[in-house]
Amino acid sequence: MTDLTKSIGNYVVDLDGNTYLDVYCQISSLPLGYNSRALIDAASSPEMIQMLVNRPALGVQPPGLWAKTLEDAFMAVAPKGLTQVFTAMCGSCSNETAYKAAFMFHQRKKRGASSATEEDFTSCMRNAKPGSPDLAIMSFEGGFHGRLFGSLTTTHTKALHKLDIPAFSSWVHSPFPRLKYPLDKHQAENDKEEARCLAVAEEKMKNATTPIAALIVEPIQSEGGDNHASPRFFQGLRDLTKKHDILMIVDEVQTGVGPTGNFWGHEAWNLTSPPDIVTFSKKFLAAGWFHRPELRPDTSYRNFNTWLGDPVRALQAKTVLHEIQSKDLIKNVAETGAYTKNELHGIENKYPSLISAVRGRGTFLAFDLPTTEERDAFVTTLRSLGVNTGGCGARSVRLRPMLVFQKKHADVFLDAVDKAASKH
Amino acid sequence: MTDLTKSIGNYVVDLDGNTYLDVYCQISSLPLGYNSRALIDAASSPEMIQMLVNRPALGVQPPGLWAKTLEDAFMAVAPKGLTQVFTAMCGSCSNETAYKAAFMFHQRKKRGASSATEEDFTSCMRNAKPGSPDLAIMSFEGGFHGRLFGSLTTTHTKALHKLDIPAFSSWVHSPFPRLKYPLDKHQAENDKEEARCLAVAEEKMKNATTPIAALIVEPIQSEGGDNHASPRFFQGLRDLTKKHDILMIVDEVQTGVGPTGNFWGHEAWNLTSPPDIVTFSKKFLAAGWFHRPELRPDTSYRNFNTWLGDPVRALQAKTVLHEIQSKDLIKNVAETGAYTKNELHGIENKYPSLISAVRGRGTFLAFDLPTTEERDAFVTTLRSLGVNTGGCGARSVRLRPMLVFQKKHADVFLDAVDKAASKH
Repeated sequence: MTDLTKSIGNYVVDLDGNTYLDVYCQISSLPLGYNSRALIDAASSPEMIQMLVNRPALGVQPPGLWAKTLEDAFMAVAPKGLTQVFTAMCGSCSNETAYKAAFMFHQRKKRGASSATEEDFTSCMRNAKPGSPDLAIMSFEGGFHGRLFGSLTTTHTKALHKLDIPAFSSWVHSPFPRLKYPLDKHQAENDKEEARCLAVAEEKMKNATTPIAALIVEPIQSEGGDNHASPRFFQGLRDLTKKHDILMIVDEVQTGVGPTGNFWGHEAWNLTSPPDIVTFSKKFLAAGWFHRPELRPDTSYRNFNTWLGDPVRALQAKTVLHEIQSKDLIKNVAETGAYTKNELHGIENKYPSLISAVRGRGTFLAFDLPTTEERDAFVTTLRSLGVNTGGCGARSVRLRPMLVFQKKHADVFLDAVDKAASKH
Repeated sequence: MTDLTKSIGNYVVDLDGNTYLDVYCQISSLPLGYNSRALIDAASSPEMIQMLVNRPALGVQPPGLWAKTLEDAFMAVAPKGLTQVFTAMCGSCSNETAYKAAFMFHQRKKRGASSATEEDFTSCMRNAKPGSPDLAIMSFEGGFHGRLFGSLTTTHTKALHKLDIPAFSSWVHSPFPRLKYPLDKHQAENDKEEARCLAVAEEKMKNATTPIAALIVEPIQSEGGDNHASPRFFQGLRDLTKKHDILMIVDEVQTGVGPTGNFWGHEAWNLTSPPDIVTFSKKFLAAGWFHRPELRPDTSYRNFNTWLGDPVRALQAKTVLHEIQSKDLIKNVAETGAYTKNELHGIENKYPSLISAVRGRGTFLAFDLPTTEERDAFVTTLRSLGVNTGGCGARSVRLRPMLVFQKKHADVFLDAVDKAASKH
């Protein structure tokens, strides 16, 4: 358990008074480190007190400052082409409300100039077709998009996440590339693997018996094991979604807000047309999704709920954004990340039978151990050496530091990795 | 839009400076009124700043004060027999994580001493049986339990809530009693209606082709039109769930935390055995569910997510609870509610062709207008008379004031209702 009164910056203190360099950061959630001065100052602002004390139902009685908060916190960094934002409570419900928007859009296109029929209205009240249509969200093996019923159907990480929970059995999923490292030594193989995955994805799109309203993909499969693919793969996916009239949702819940060295992870792809929806949470402290204006429902109250997100967290997002910009934190991430990755390659070369597949962008880095057991033991050793981190996938260690992680912190981390490797 | 700097107590001020008595309260969400002194004081406490600034992943790195917060905010008012609490972000995800717990429990019972099989583990990764089983949550016509994929399947209020969204088509639903008012003049008819609904529910339980893991029911169907049933009906339901080995989930998202004149709406039923799960949100500011200890999953990380609720809102729940207890607010609700209901009966008798079916418990009151159009016009007239309220169901006006709604506020409301009725 954490002693939040003593934790500071990149360092977390437990209840026994032990200090750890925290590169796991509340599952990749803390953007500015423990007890950030900027967030402390914002915490007692009159706006924050207002929003805390008078929890508003943003869809029916928004406070006067809500429109400007949306502008300052979110629209100021909206991905190119996405001129609207929908606020939500967490990553799972961001993805799920985005799925709902995709389904509504799909059906509206299908209807064209016609209205929903009486049968549509009556059948949906019984959860029956045609009002409750059989439509799918396409996802990838190894993808993680949340753990509620719709999002869990699109999650394919660990069986224990999914076991015993009913799922939408007709929603299709497709393999995600499993690249070999180091990349420069496996270029041809990896190209082939990505081409194979694109071909399978297109086959699944063509042969889907349940129409696919949207595809969801992470810029880096995070929970699934830090699985990467090239910009060319994602451009290929975008082309397929355009060709088959499927919306493209980019899940930036873990990659968004800086850790990859871009504000949004998908910026690195240079897509020829922007994705239709980009979802966010974690490091923004607030959650939601950006979207094209065409994806607004045609009637009020269709994609709706009581709170529609939390303005307290939106005010914090504004502070996070201000800190990122005023302190050039994305540049810090890119520089510290490049340094750390380079040094990790050095450790990989020193312990080639233990550490492999050093990979990542910015400080969103990972490496593999030979087995799950060795990975788990390695994480425990790192902890005994004063570094708190976590695993992902079957045998990866992942680095998920704050945006204020600097070279001096990287050195503490690297020293611990080197020491841990020498002990294993 | 609301001017939160000027709104105070039971009165909300809009951006044009107009003041309204607010008996709708951010969709039944505000417990203590605008700019509550207690919540303002709590907003700048060191604990609140800690929790705001260092947003924790409660399942992996809980702050030291979390255990005590759970005790003080939630367990101090746990419904009888429910010794555990699971925290969540909002009403929808409270219900959905409760459904997940019910499904896991159902499958564990089914397996008995056996473990999940290799086939269970591999099939769930493909969203296929047997690992992703075809199991149902049973719900009621007119019920509202949220708008994500699982919760929306159990919601049966307005078609626009459900249209175009895929649903679990095998989840069964059953009619909820539609009582006639005044109750004392329709006793025999209403008894018959409740017996009919229980009989249909039992038929559906017996004949379900998809096994039912749990039933979910609101103490008062709120969004669905303030539909009530007698304690005997709910005792009958409890008996059926026991007989057919189905868990009973009581959705107290809107009825919980005082507005019915009990802390929990279901207390009024005097059930012979407590429900298995009680969900909450809205007036508690924080969300989650209480449950029997047997419903804990058998392994870590099964019912899990990054944030697992928001400790900021949990700290506020503690303040809400303290205010309720120190100011005897439940008693205030019961007394003000009884007075208001009695006066509404007077207005009902004065305008018998316009206003009917005055009903409710505590200040959780409603009445009907002849048509949807007349109801909508009536709500608009009330607003022009300085009262902000809302509709529910097809033709009901509902009262959802704060717990600090007193006789003097009730008089303002009653005067406006009388004036509005005289104009219609």
